[in-house]
Amino acid sequence: MDPRTYVEKHRGEFVAALKDWLAIPSISADPARSGDVRRSADWLAAHLADTGFPTVEVWETDGMPAVFAEWPATDPGAPTVVVYGHHDVQPVDPVEAWHTDPFVPVEQGDRLIGRGASDDKGQVLFHTLGLRANLAASGASAPPVTVKLLVEGEEESGSPHFAELLKRHRDRLGCDVVVISDTTMWSAETPSMCVGMRGLTDCQIDVYGPEVDLHSGSFGGAVPNPARVLAGLLAGMHDADGRIAIPGFHDDVAEVTAAERGLLARLPFDEAEWLRTASSTAAAGEAGYSTLERVWVRPTAEINGMWSGHTGAGTKTIVPRSAHAKVSFRLVPDQDPLRVQRCVDAYVAGNLPEGVRATVAFAGPGVRPCASDLESAAVRAARAAMGRAFDTEVLFTREGGSGPEADIADVLGAPLVFVAVGLDDDRIHAPNEKVEVPLLLKGAESAAHLWDELAAALRP
Amino acid sequence: MDPRTYVEKHRGEFVAALKDWLAIPSISADPARSGDVRRSADWLAAHLADTGFPTVEVWETDGMPAVFAEWPATDPGAPTVVVYGHHDVQPVDPVEAWHTDPFVPVEQGDRLIGRGASDDKGQVLFHTLGLRANLAASGASAPPVTVKLLVEGEEESGSPHFAELLKRHRDRLGCDVVVISDTTMWSAETPSMCVGMRGLTDCQIDVYGPEVDLHSGSFGGAVPNPARVLAGLLAGMHDADGRIAIPGFHDDVAEVTAAERGLLARLPFDEAEWLRTASSTAAAGEAGYSTLERVWVRPTAEINGMWSGHTGAGTKTIVPRSAHAKVSFRLVPDQDPLRVQRCVDAYVAGNLPEGVRATVAFAGPGVRPCASDLESAAVRAARAAMGRAFDTEVLFTREGGSGPEADIADVLGAPLVFVAVGLDDDRIHAPNEKVEVPLLLKGAESAAHLWDELAAALRP
Repeated sequence: MDPRTYVEKHRGEFVAALKDWLAIPSISADPARSGDVRRSADWLAAHLADTGFPTVEVWETDGMPAVFAEWPATDPGAPTVVVYGHHDVQPVDPVEAWHTDPFVPVEQGDRLIGRGASDDKGQVLFHTLGLRANLAASGASAPPVTVKLLVEGEEESGSPHFAELLKRHRDRLGCDVVVISDTTMWSAETPSMCVGMRGLTDCQIDVYGPEVDLHSGSFGGAVPNPARVLAGLLAGMHDADGRIAIPGFHDDVAEVTAAERGLLARLPFDEAEWLRTASSTAAAGEAGYSTLERVWVRPTAEINGMWSGHTGAGTKTIVPRSAHAKVSFRLVPDQDPLRVQRCVDAYVAGNLPEGVRATVAFAGPGVRPCASDLESAAVRAARAAMGRAFDTEVLFTREGGSGPEADIADVLGAPLVFVAVGLDDDRIHAPNEKVEVPLLLKGAESAAHLWDELAAALRP
Repeated sequence: MDPRTYVEKHRGEFVAALKDWLAIPSISADPARSGDVRRSADWLAAHLADTGFPTVEVWETDGMPAVFAEWPATDPGAPTVVVYGHHDVQPVDPVEAWHTDPFVPVEQGDRLIGRGASDDKGQVLFHTLGLRANLAASGASAPPVTVKLLVEGEEESGSPHFAELLKRHRDRLGCDVVVISDTTMWSAETPSMCVGMRGLTDCQIDVYGPEVDLHSGSFGGAVPNPARVLAGLLAGMHDADGRIAIPGFHDDVAEVTAAERGLLARLPFDEAEWLRTASSTAAAGEAGYSTLERVWVRPTAEINGMWSGHTGAGTKTIVPRSAHAKVSFRLVPDQDPLRVQRCVDAYVAGNLPEGVRATVAFAGPGVRPCASDLESAAVRAARAAMGRAFDTEVLFTREGGSGPEADIADVLGAPLVFVAVGLDDDRIHAPNEKVEVPLLLKGAESAAHLWDELAAALRP
């Protein structure tokens, strides 16, 4: 049976399994949900065993567990592939903005709605369907490459223990290529492969002034106001051209090449449509760059949250004692998160007036940016597999988001290829996350072809 | 009998009456105490009648009642004075922090401890003792000016019905000068008169960007971030010298005169002590002004609170959909709150990038600043009266806070003078409020002289 027929025949079973998994609220950022993240890992492990993986293990970390599975190729000389995904999900706030319960998955036509439907449970799960389709097509009892799945449980919390996990299990994870399924395509009509992701580091800035909230009549105007100092720090992170103004921040930024700019320009980008997806009435960003370039090949400094003083109803005429912000930085090759952290530390420390102190706490070591070589065998093979599934030419994109991919490539010493079918309007990290089920099926079909293409391309 | 002898002779009787009044818990902010606020008004009305006021009335409002009393001068051509004070008191929370029952007044040496002792029952009551002392000294049966007392019952609740009360009784309240006895002196050793209070207007600024929180990886860097826009608006409210940079804001600011600066500089100000009170390690503010000038004669734009996006534990890499701040502006003569509101509106509207909208909601019409003319006959007379009572030169101060005084002056069309003997360490609005009885007696003595001084100064 050809992969397309197999995949379409098993759609009902696939969606039912995914709904089961989506019902588990595996929010890794919420300590109260740690039991659910573990339940999610156990669910996946059981599903992988059912799929036929001879080896399935739940790998503990100092945080939430990951799931590992391995299915050796029939041919011991065949290449080995590691597939990366994650089984934890984003928080659901503001929960009142959801039209359905985020953890009661609902089908509406071809859409499946629920937290994690696209990011990333749906995209992990298409691999099990794809592998079954590959076996059904070949009639073999094992895939043409050794397939190893590594599905972590803390991606939405910045993967704080993932690098350690990779190092600990480095011997089990030996491979020739890493397949990442945690990104998006250009569109349902224009399938594409991601060839780069931005890195990330994020921090909380806490600014302190007088030791207590002060009456703004008795003291206002003559003591430092930490909220004003914080506003100044935040506003000063960009210059008038929208370029990040933190000294040293740009030192390692690799300017995008003319060749890559040309490739990006081939994408049928509809800015008006993109803005509708963003629910924004205007684009904004660094002068001299297109919207796609701003999102994919330029770094950012983004305020994710801030708070200070009186935030309730009515008025309270105080000078607040402290002010706080959460700021994340998206990084591009060849920025190093730790070096960027030092720049941010120095920037904050260097811009505090007398009477004000501040701390900058980074959530972790950060995530390094990554990029694939467009001319590599692995990228060519993956592009061919997706082309067969989608019956059309596959273009290249990058991702503005971040994952631990650079660490994977680094620790495992293997190149990355991105095979994923999410869409930018899937509302990942937002209320009413959804996935297009037909695209998940194309993902499964791509995965089914991928093992043959990689076996041929990477055979020594 | 001279006023000093009279006042000292009647100290016991005066303190006994004040303790009676302080025992009534007239907390206007507590609906459960409304009967007590009324009892307080009745107590005062009876006391004023005992003092000899020919006219004593309890004036109803839509809230708590005020007390009005009038004692016409013997000479029908004599000036008329309205004395303003209030008979309601602040709540007593946290009541466990009081060392004595807030409504069982206790004498400890020269101190009288109880809620309202300084703010404002003690300062209202010294006027009755002062008026008796004036009559004892002159031997007349009526004061040398027509004295009208207006003692409101909702000052500690923001005087919600006071403007209406003033307008309704405008004809009864006609006067040449308004005496305010609800403020403080520099210190027991350095008697002073307040000659101005800052005004106030405060708003909430709401900034909106994309309609939903967006993933900062997928969209960050290419859509406007409302938190960044708000940070820019807030940071831009001051220039590098700490001067407010909102266009038009300073148009009506009356620069403090060299004469007043000279007088303020004569106050024995201990900045280190002031900073300890503020629990701040440094002073900060507009370049070119002293700490006292910054608090008293310069306007402020103070962030009282702000919030946006993710403010909980952990990280959430979003572009938040909205950002909010509460900002209050302390105003100085001759700023008009409504005109300042228009400047703030225009500043916000004029600094929004495409794709961002904002609203500015002011809490109300605001409070106008007020100031007395140091060279006016009324200020000279009051200063002379206090100088006679304290046997020393009386200096000038201002208040950084705001009150309804400007409205009184405005509605009644008369200048204000502040004659008060509270101290900054009286712990008004805090547990263990106290008043220094010797200062209340000096207040009574000042009041006794005040009617003679004003009669002489204001006689046409």
